[in-house]
Amino acid sequence: MEKTSVPKATLGRLPRYLRFLKELPQEKSSYISATAIAKSLALGEVQVRKDLSAVSGAGRPKVGYETVDLIKSLENVLGRGNLTFAVLVGAGKLGRALLEHDEFEDYGVKIVAAFDCNEHPIRLSSSKEILPMCQFEHFCKSRKIQIGIITVGEGSAQAVCDQMVQSGITAIWNFAPCKLEVPAGVLLKQERLALSLAYLNNQLYN
Amino acid sequence: MEKTSVPKATLGRLPRYLRFLKELPQEKSSYISATAIAKSLALGEVQVRKDLSAVSGAGRPKVGYETVDLIKSLENVLGRGNLTFAVLVGAGKLGRALLEHDEFEDYGVKIVAAFDCNEHPIRLSSSKEILPMCQFEHFCKSRKIQIGIITVGEGSAQAVCDQMVQSGITAIWNFAPCKLEVPAGVLLKQERLALSLAYLNNQLYN
Repeated sequence: MEKTSVPKATLGRLPRYLRFLKELPQEKSSYISATAIAKSLALGEVQVRKDLSAVSGAGRPKVGYETVDLIKSLENVLGRGNLTFAVLVGAGKLGRALLEHDEFEDYGVKIVAAFDCNEHPIRLSSSKEILPMCQFEHFCKSRKIQIGIITVGEGSAQAVCDQMVQSGITAIWNFAPCKLEVPAGVLLKQERLALSLAYLNNQLYN
Repeated sequence: MEKTSVPKATLGRLPRYLRFLKELPQEKSSYISATAIAKSLALGEVQVRKDLSAVSGAGRPKVGYETVDLIKSLENVLGRGNLTFAVLVGAGKLGRALLEHDEFEDYGVKIVAAFDCNEHPIRLSSSKEILPMCQFEHFCKSRKIQIGIITVGEGSAQAVCDQMVQSGITAIWNFAPCKLEVPAGVLLKQERLALSLAYLNNQLYN
């Protein structure tokens, strides 16, 4: 799978473009201009042009983009049709909320299982499972899991992180409020929910 | 309560400084230098100086900061001792996870109750309550709630947002994956969890 690195804000708008293009009536849909997309989605034309050029290069002058190609490019950048598999460790409230959050697949990521210290698998109503940690390494290696999500407490986050790396995971999304050490070549994204709220609170008084 | 607007990254480090200063043995604690703080917390000296100057101005040359004053400034910026009250609407898994997340109080915000479409109050093990929506406006007005957190689905987020504004809330943290309209003067922070994961996924292939 080839992907293009696009800015985060652009990435956030791509599912909207994709949904819009896929819903176009077929007879109208061979070419579409950035202007038409901008108008239909109530977005700025400059922004749309910039977003699309990050994904698919420039459209053809006076004609725009070939719709089929643009859909393909969007799907490619969003990783659709070729989902990246993720697992999650720590099946508390936050972990379960993420496990059942259905927006991730719009962005090409599917959380396929959660792990926790339960002895036996727990099947959730969503048909996803919470598996015991003893199955973690085998599961990740056999399914070539690439993304690991950490929703355990601060105290066990580094151990979980190490286990993820050892199991072949190359990108980690950490919700535990602590700094993690990862070897070179492993991507780490620290999520700090409290900070968003702190910042909002701080702005209230300015 | 007076607050100083500080950058988000700085804000994120303040609880660490505060914890460190409060744990200093009393006899050693009348003055402390940025150098000493940096060394103890394994942070860069330039960063510590920058952080502290955003909070408390410059320290005295060769002596540093008066510990008691610095603690007060940190507590002030973090809103401690004068917690801002928040409520949350939408007590699903994510809502309940946030309701019981204990890091928010480190940053001066306390989520005092959650609301949902239940008919009667539900008391949680944390002693917090999920209240019926019919009590929302009265609750917010009588307790002067300033922050509202939206963890309902896309379909009802705008209605909840409007109700928050009408109930006197002036800062909204929205987890629903949709754009909200707020009147001028109301702060809005859009949280897009899926985007962090999307970005991580996109980086995997570059």
